[in-house]
Amino acid sequence: MTQTHKENRIAKAPRLFVAADLAAGAEVTCEPGQANYLVNVLRLRAGAAVRLFNGRDGEWLAEITTAKRGKCTLQIRETLRAQETPPDIDYLFAPLKKARLDYMVQKATEMGVAALRPVMTAYTVADRVNLERMRANAIEAAEQCNILWVPEVSEPQPLRAVLAHWPEERRLIFCDEAAPIASPVEALGAVAPGPLGVLVGPEGGFNAEERAVLRNASFAVPISLGPRVMRADTAAVAALALVNAVLGDWR
Amino acid sequence: MTQTHKENRIAKAPRLFVAADLAAGAEVTCEPGQANYLVNVLRLRAGAAVRLFNGRDGEWLAEITTAKRGKCTLQIRETLRAQETPPDIDYLFAPLKKARLDYMVQKATEMGVAALRPVMTAYTVADRVNLERMRANAIEAAEQCNILWVPEVSEPQPLRAVLAHWPEERRLIFCDEAAPIASPVEALGAVAPGPLGVLVGPEGGFNAEERAVLRNASFAVPISLGPRVMRADTAAVAALALVNAVLGDWR
Repeated sequence: MTQTHKENRIAKAPRLFVAADLAAGAEVTCEPGQANYLVNVLRLRAGAAVRLFNGRDGEWLAEITTAKRGKCTLQIRETLRAQETPPDIDYLFAPLKKARLDYMVQKATEMGVAALRPVMTAYTVADRVNLERMRANAIEAAEQCNILWVPEVSEPQPLRAVLAHWPEERRLIFCDEAAPIASPVEALGAVAPGPLGVLVGPEGGFNAEERAVLRNASFAVPISLGPRVMRADTAAVAALALVNAVLGDWR
Repeated sequence: MTQTHKENRIAKAPRLFVAADLAAGAEVTCEPGQANYLVNVLRLRAGAAVRLFNGRDGEWLAEITTAKRGKCTLQIRETLRAQETPPDIDYLFAPLKKARLDYMVQKATEMGVAALRPVMTAYTVADRVNLERMRANAIEAAEQCNILWVPEVSEPQPLRAVLAHWPEERRLIFCDEAAPIASPVEALGAVAPGPLGVLVGPEGGFNAEERAVLRNASFAVPISLGPRVMRADTAAVAALALVNAVLGDWR
């Protein structure tokens, strides 16, 4: 096999997030859903290449050793990429309704955040959050976008409680149409390097009390996202792009 | 009616894009789809408030005068906002498949672009583009996000032809993982004020020839969107957010 053939084979190999430890020679048994995907959907057979990552051991090339209905085992061949650490950005958001929440979780994962933290605010529309579904969306986005970690998904918490226990050293960037500095690049440029949170409120915005708490918090950094109204999932990508570009790893 | 009641009534009034000229006292007959939406979906009756914009005359408060099955007429009462001009940003993109294209069109509209220009590239997946559907998505996003214009939607053109006839004075910002300046804020900061284009390629990227043409074009400005892979609709929002923040009206 030439080098280019090998590279193509690897680049086209499906990419799966697994719980198992990864090391050369180890055997991995796929979960039933993954076995179904590899064997019944993609119709892969013994010998086919698969890429694996677990958020700890980097990315590995593996080969299917058994491909049966409902069962698929893999043997790990060689390392492809060393583990990377996610930028230390927690993404906090008021959960949206189903499809838009799926989308927002996928997008925040693509933007590389380390943690997904749903917060309940006064104007939050969704009253329940399906954490399993959030986690499945985060895994899918990480698998598809070559990311080496899956953001941690935490239980929803009231925004008030989150702010009351917020660690002072972690700057919390939040979107505020009345931010005192109109330019978000300038506002972010004044933030010292360190751990970050990014908070995007619900479509109806924060209420007066939430806004007052945020404005008075020493750790909070308001940024404006311009003169137009945006949906919350758009604001999420826009805010995280600016944070990555000015403070994160897009430099 | 108190001032606050009036403000609430206006803020909650549905917002519609219409073709008609708008001026105080004028009568507007809704299109059948809009009549159905106001009368059958929202169940509005004569006297209900509706906001109208047409991309030329600003935003107006109107009142329903006739609300029948299949027919709805409005009388225009008073002006709410003066017309605004969109930032001079053309958004060029390789069309995606259905739901993702809908999403990308909505997002680019929310980001305030003046024109939506589909371009066919070597790795473009969608072979046909439904312009009516694109336009409907752009209208819906403008209506929902308080925008006073609907971006112009143009026929798909081959990227090669677009680049061959590109006007020199319009800088064309495109996403390139191998951009010579790693920081997109720094790369955009070097662009002089003026008309802009933003180009986002298909999920497979540009091919070698397209990339060579773009790299050699005097009007083209490559920017990097960081070390992770992003889907094209995510890259669209990220790139437009950075352009708005550094060169556009988010300042």
